[in-house]
Amino acid sequence: MDILKQRIMEDARVLEGQIIKVDNFLNHQVDVALLNEIGKEFKERFKDYKIDKILTAEASGIAIASIAAQYFQVPMIFARKTESKNLDKDKYESEVYSYTKGKVYKIMVSKRYLKEDENVLIIDDFLANGKAVEGLIDIVNQSGANLIGIGVAIEKGFQDGGKGLRERGIKLESLAIIDSIKDGKVEFR
Amino acid sequence: MDILKQRIMEDARVLEGQIIKVDNFLNHQVDVALLNEIGKEFKERFKDYKIDKILTAEASGIAIASIAAQYFQVPMIFARKTESKNLDKDKYESEVYSYTKGKVYKIMVSKRYLKEDENVLIIDDFLANGKAVEGLIDIVNQSGANLIGIGVAIEKGFQDGGKGLRERGIKLESLAIIDSIKDGKVEFR
Repeated sequence: MDILKQRIMEDARVLEGQIIKVDNFLNHQVDVALLNEIGKEFKERFKDYKIDKILTAEASGIAIASIAAQYFQVPMIFARKTESKNLDKDKYESEVYSYTKGKVYKIMVSKRYLKEDENVLIIDDFLANGKAVEGLIDIVNQSGANLIGIGVAIEKGFQDGGKGLRERGIKLESLAIIDSIKDGKVEFR
Repeated sequence: MDILKQRIMEDARVLEGQIIKVDNFLNHQVDVALLNEIGKEFKERFKDYKIDKILTAEASGIAIASIAAQYFQVPMIFARKTESKNLDKDKYESEVYSYTKGKVYKIMVSKRYLKEDENVLIIDDFLANGKAVEGLIDIVNQSGANLIGIGVAIEKGFQDGGKGLRERGIKLESLAIIDSIKDGKVEFR
């Protein structure tokens, strides 16, 4: 998706450890006009599929999944990371290791909101090693719902997440795949 | 806002301790069509004001703030609650006590994204005691930006948050104000 790649080249900052910061348009300050283009593109790529729910994880997946859900005209569910009085006790849970935060956390979805006969599209901002997405897939599987596919804005193609998902036959649509970062410069697949 | 009040009457669940669960349309599973109506209403109520940025806090504010930001055509910023390699070291911080989680947490905004000459509208899903909003106001004040006002979907009018803000002359727009909860039934102002 050219508009997204263009934006990454202009505005992303590359830090040590191959971290790509896109916090000025994607996951801290959010450009909702760009997110609308991304949402339309996800809809285009999954237009032949029946989608009943969009699933993401808090926090940085929520903006992109909310805006995309408008184009699918379905509810968006975000998996919660913290226990809260607002979350049902009867819930699906999975554990996720976060490299950027350096710890394991739980993600949780109330059993009310994922059912056996529903078709689920997972949407997230980033895919690197794929741990967060694996946690979401685990929750979809626990619920018995059908995983239709996964849409991510930016995939770090030099990490294993995307490769592993594709090898298992999962329909993964990444709008910008970064194949390498050399001398602070991003190269796309 | 009638459509929101109607939805609360139909779908909210009232739990012990005057907790109102709206996790089937607002803060876990999210009805983006309703959020669009809410976003339009915020725009209508703040139409006479110049707004440069919309500010919220993760996680449950992000969906409503993202969708609303489309109508204002401005970026949305969500304050982060956890340290992350994705967050700049140079940031504004405030502390917030959460009643639903029973603990104090930090909220943080990178100094890159709030500037002295910017006009900020805070948007959140819920206002009860107002602690989360006070944390966001604190961050706006630290940055030197101008707080234009606050928009919340649901205010618990029987708690102190809204009263305190209005007494200080802050423009607070709550789309549904719950004045009491009696025998599991919600009454609006």
